[in-house]
Amino acid sequence: MRTNIFMNKNILILYSGGMDSSVALYKYASEIRLAVSFDYGSKHNRKELEIAASNCRELGIEHQIIELDLNKMGFVSDLLLSGKEIPDGHYEEENMKKTVVPFRNGIMLSICAGIAESLDCKRLIITNHAGDHVIYPDCREEFITNMNKAVKSGTSNQVEIFAPFTMMTKREIALIGKEINVPFENTYSCYKGGKIHCGLCGTCIERKEALDGFDPTAYLA
Amino acid sequence: MRTNIFMNKNILILYSGGMDSSVALYKYASEIRLAVSFDYGSKHNRKELEIAASNCRELGIEHQIIELDLNKMGFVSDLLLSGKEIPDGHYEEENMKKTVVPFRNGIMLSICAGIAESLDCKRLIITNHAGDHVIYPDCREEFITNMNKAVKSGTSNQVEIFAPFTMMTKREIALIGKEINVPFENTYSCYKGGKIHCGLCGTCIERKEALDGFDPTAYLA
Repeated sequence: MRTNIFMNKNILILYSGGMDSSVALYKYASEIRLAVSFDYGSKHNRKELEIAASNCRELGIEHQIIELDLNKMGFVSDLLLSGKEIPDGHYEEENMKKTVVPFRNGIMLSICAGIAESLDCKRLIITNHAGDHVIYPDCREEFITNMNKAVKSGTSNQVEIFAPFTMMTKREIALIGKEINVPFENTYSCYKGGKIHCGLCGTCIERKEALDGFDPTAYLA
Repeated sequence: MRTNIFMNKNILILYSGGMDSSVALYKYASEIRLAVSFDYGSKHNRKELEIAASNCRELGIEHQIIELDLNKMGFVSDLLLSGKEIPDGHYEEENMKKTVVPFRNGIMLSICAGIAESLDCKRLIITNHAGDHVIYPDCREEFITNMNKAVKSGTSNQVEIFAPFTMMTKREIALIGKEINVPFENTYSCYKGGKIHCGLCGTCIERKEALDGFDPTAYLA
């Protein structure tokens, strides 16, 4: 277990176990009070959650998993267990829009804002990045700016959203991770949720591009 | 069952079964596609939910109940089952702050925004009002304005939040309800969740003041 400085821990991080949020988890570890993962009923969630738990254990960070079954609530998305098959192809292509989970980041940020207020945490980290902007409205700078104002004005301790990677590419995030020795082999991206990364879905293709030259991932294709 | 006009139904309403949201339910009934209630683990929730379901049946409006147990997620509030006893007294008093559920409106609006996008609903009604402003940051105009921008920019069909009572007093809402014959005897406000309104908690006192002169409610005190 790495050593943490047990002071100034006022960050709550939205942590999926994917490569972007893992880079932030390792980068801000000493300030993190709680890492929160959501089991929201997607096809790949369970695999991600195991990875998320193991990185938190490694860093000695408290980890909370929230069950929020969006399938039961009538959400429509191919990313969910109730959806159709995950399409292959690049992330920015039209057919990937079917994998959008409506307002997912807004929902997760809102629940985390309430937990942050309960724990008197002042900052809430989310790791959206520039590559998400094309198809995900709730990953864009405009949304983050507005949501930050909503959370700040709607909590009594004025929780702030900190989205450090909003204007970065996934490659740039990967390079930060390489610099601070993030164990990328222990992060998970595949939307299909298999034991081994499929290598063909949008997130796998993005992951390959980002980690090019130092990719420890085993892919099926 | 009242008659609805089955066209232009593009409103999703956040509906608790309380008097304010019941006034909006009756006022906008012909445009409502879905009413959503949350079972979020409060002391009074279950009683409210029965009332909510019965008003939706009466109006022929589809009703969805979402289970979201905030107790399990680590939320701290005396309104929740995990909290301490509900204090008696006026709504605006200091001790009522303990009944605030952190960012509750933000959480419910976010989940409803995702459902609204899934159903292609364009408007999302919430019935916060001026009397809530003192102790609830997520009932104030500033929060609603910011949250509206967040939801609009974070959904692909640009869902809008419509909060018609933001600047009204509960008395003014009650008068609108009287005008359109809202069955106030079939609405529920008490934070203690008993079969009969306690008449002493903050919401009961507010309810009495608002319905003064035409109050069909039976109170214990």
